[in-house]
Amino acid sequence: MVKESKPTGGLEWRINIPNGTTSKVLVPESKSHFRVWNGLRGLIVGFMSRIWKFFEKAWSLAVREPKKAIHGLKVGMALSLVSLFYYMRPLYNGVGGNAMWAVMTVVVVFEYTVGATLCKCVNRAIGTFLAGALGLGVHWIANQSGEKFEPIVLQISVFLLAAAATFSRFIPAIKARFDYGAMIFILTFSLVSVSGYRVDKLFELAHHRLSTIAIGTSLCILTGMLFCPVWAGNELHYLITNNMEKLAASLDGCVVEYFGIHANVNAKGEDSDKVLQGYKCVLNSKATEEVMANFAKWEPAHGRFYFRHPWNEYLKVGAFLRKCAYCIETLNVSTNSDTEAPDILKKHFSKFCISLSSCSSDVLKELAVIMHTMTKSTKIDLMVHEMNNAVQELQCALKSLPKETIIGDSKSGIEEGNKSTTVVPLMEIVPIVYISTLLIEIAARIEKSVEAVNELAIKAEFEQESTKKSKKIQNQQNPNQPSQGNQEDLTMKTLQKV
Amino acid sequence: MVKESKPTGGLEWRINIPNGTTSKVLVPESKSHFRVWNGLRGLIVGFMSRIWKFFEKAWSLAVREPKKAIHGLKVGMALSLVSLFYYMRPLYNGVGGNAMWAVMTVVVVFEYTVGATLCKCVNRAIGTFLAGALGLGVHWIANQSGEKFEPIVLQISVFLLAAAATFSRFIPAIKARFDYGAMIFILTFSLVSVSGYRVDKLFELAHHRLSTIAIGTSLCILTGMLFCPVWAGNELHYLITNNMEKLAASLDGCVVEYFGIHANVNAKGEDSDKVLQGYKCVLNSKATEEVMANFAKWEPAHGRFYFRHPWNEYLKVGAFLRKCAYCIETLNVSTNSDTEAPDILKKHFSKFCISLSSCSSDVLKELAVIMHTMTKSTKIDLMVHEMNNAVQELQCALKSLPKETIIGDSKSGIEEGNKSTTVVPLMEIVPIVYISTLLIEIAARIEKSVEAVNELAIKAEFEQESTKKSKKIQNQQNPNQPSQGNQEDLTMKTLQKV
Repeated sequence: MVKESKPTGGLEWRINIPNGTTSKVLVPESKSHFRVWNGLRGLIVGFMSRIWKFFEKAWSLAVREPKKAIHGLKVGMALSLVSLFYYMRPLYNGVGGNAMWAVMTVVVVFEYTVGATLCKCVNRAIGTFLAGALGLGVHWIANQSGEKFEPIVLQISVFLLAAAATFSRFIPAIKARFDYGAMIFILTFSLVSVSGYRVDKLFELAHHRLSTIAIGTSLCILTGMLFCPVWAGNELHYLITNNMEKLAASLDGCVVEYFGIHANVNAKGEDSDKVLQGYKCVLNSKATEEVMANFAKWEPAHGRFYFRHPWNEYLKVGAFLRKCAYCIETLNVSTNSDTEAPDILKKHFSKFCISLSSCSSDVLKELAVIMHTMTKSTKIDLMVHEMNNAVQELQCALKSLPKETIIGDSKSGIEEGNKSTTVVPLMEIVPIVYISTLLIEIAARIEKSVEAVNELAIKAEFEQESTKKSKKIQNQQNPNQPSQGNQEDLTMKTLQKV
Repeated sequence: MVKESKPTGGLEWRINIPNGTTSKVLVPESKSHFRVWNGLRGLIVGFMSRIWKFFEKAWSLAVREPKKAIHGLKVGMALSLVSLFYYMRPLYNGVGGNAMWAVMTVVVVFEYTVGATLCKCVNRAIGTFLAGALGLGVHWIANQSGEKFEPIVLQISVFLLAAAATFSRFIPAIKARFDYGAMIFILTFSLVSVSGYRVDKLFELAHHRLSTIAIGTSLCILTGMLFCPVWAGNELHYLITNNMEKLAASLDGCVVEYFGIHANVNAKGEDSDKVLQGYKCVLNSKATEEVMANFAKWEPAHGRFYFRHPWNEYLKVGAFLRKCAYCIETLNVSTNSDTEAPDILKKHFSKFCISLSSCSSDVLKELAVIMHTMTKSTKIDLMVHEMNNAVQELQCALKSLPKETIIGDSKSGIEEGNKSTTVVPLMEIVPIVYISTLLIEIAARIEKSVEAVNELAIKAEFEQESTKKSKKIQNQQNPNQPSQGNQEDLTMKTLQKV
């Protein structure tokens, strides 16, 4: 039976299967080929577009952080240099087949930051040396105990030392500084004690390995430090500084958006969202900060950082900033919630809240400037003082609230010209009280951050901003300021307090 | 001139230096020896005590987490097994001097969790294979281009591929899964293309390396999976479960401590502090969770986890728990602050706040039970409903506050028998409003966590708690509950909502 089927929109051949209940569409062979080809083409196109996307991502990463692309080139260069030991015969004859170890050292040891590279180099050298020496000792003891017991002594020693060294990698003190060294210790000890059973030229082997490691590590260190070096200390310094700026922007944006004064926000739309979400980077920066601080300790003096720069202080500053970020997160969620305060209250409080948040973010921005210029600021104490004043004003506004919720007159600034009685139920002031208290809490946490930065500034011996220069700037900023003396008095007072 | 000096309390000999202005104490030789000896002894004792402390720490770690000590023993065992290839001649003849690579593979690849070990094994195998094949190809091309150009072609290929592979390690998609593979790729490619210039038996080398890597990896995988395996998935599962319990304990402890009902706190003193600070572990668990989830994806089915267990859902649950933790952090700080609410208000609100916090922590505890038993709970929706009721009661208490702040009568429960007028200024209710709103916010975040856990329960196909069993338990817990039907209605309603 042949019938036409409408839905496909064209002519189609069907046959009924003998049982009479089903029918099968007859597809022309060329059409099925076409389908297979179409499916295959779809697969290939999909695959190619995925690869294309991957390369696009890689390209945008390289454009955004050229340092990382340069690091790739540096590794390539170091490897090319080390492979010269193979290609140039005189060098080859010197180092021999062991040049493999130099290549391996370069690949394994060359890290993104100088600190990480130095840490791994030192670890590799110490681990290899210790394990080599111990391996020779154990080998000598095994030799003395007769041919029968030799493999047993070696096996037991490998088992015990490998177990102990592996376990030691879990101990925080070892893990932080010598994790890689412990691994290299196990590796070298196993190789020396095991291969010692076969190769009798153990001393020569040890000597070769150490010299090739020396070649590899020195190449890595030189390449890492001479061409566009990436210092872990620098990265940590700028991470903390950036975090301060991000927190300031988030805090400002969040409060201004809540009180509906959009004109003041510089960035709009997607950018504004990005600014508001800046605090999220700070929430989870602990691990990165700790790793960076750990590597920074291995680095020699560089740029504006001396050898014993107080990197641990950065961790303290980072911890306080994170505490600010927790609070800003709570604030951000509460300002985005559905339960809004009545407009009349929002208008009244907007002045105080925005004043406090802008004072707070100014302090954060000034902290970022202190970090950026590595100069003690003469303004910071004044700014903290202003922030505390703003806190007190907000608290006063909260205190004087009952009166104003009952009678809204023109003096209170709620609604000018409206002298009628406006009673606001207490429940409706809850959001404002909550947000105000969060802002006050954030100010308190920022003050702690200021203390931590001051501590850092003392320990890292940040330069003192010359009084003359600061006066000049202050005069330029406030040409009509009547009493400069008063301000400086305040600064002195708060300085003494801090 | 000889004189006696009093401060030392004994007889002392001095001589005047000719210029007459200074005098020098004559110390008996035996005394200076004694001092040196004392100093040396102090040094040695200090050194020994530091070593002793280190071992004490290591011992306490091993007692606290025996799995880690066992991991050490497992690595020792795997190394002993692999070194058998050296000691037993028939095996040695088979694998040859390349057995070194097997030792190296074991040391480098054997990780704490099975997932991490598998990830490294697969990475190492793929990296070696790809780089080996590519290295042979490049070597063939270099061979064709004549003896002069051979090293140049090889050098350029090493430079380009090493640079590209190193850069690829910065791309998040590669970094998460194939970081180690990229490193091994660089290593093997460099070794093959460089050593190829010397050694003509490249195919044999490649074959040997692959077979030794196969021996090493299979040994690691077998040892890791057969003897006390540590599964990354398991660890992640228990990390999330523990975090729920910690949050519940912190929340409960914090609120109960603030309202001064110490009798209800189970733990006291140092222990109580530890319980209160439990939320801090949750604040910074993101990195660990991500690493664990990443490794868990490599693991085969084990215990109660199937092969395609939805590990990503754990990350979502973890993220919501962390959001709770941020809020609890703010709550904890505010309950410890100096500005306290007046006792009369605290007493009044304690009932509602403690009720809400205990409902909230009950929900968290029930979530932990769901995770622990991997069974869908019939109670959880009821508990969320109760939590929401507690939220509403607290909100009502806030709403009805103005009346009660003006006239405190016995009905309001503020102070029984005290019928006089007690006026509380608004400023003093701020802490209570703040803490109440935080508790309400925490409840909202816990509800989000419940949704995430429900999503996980669906995707991971958690078993349904048999209705019969749950009824039995409910009857045991609430023998006097009048209407079971009502409760189940509620459960159904909330179930539909979710």
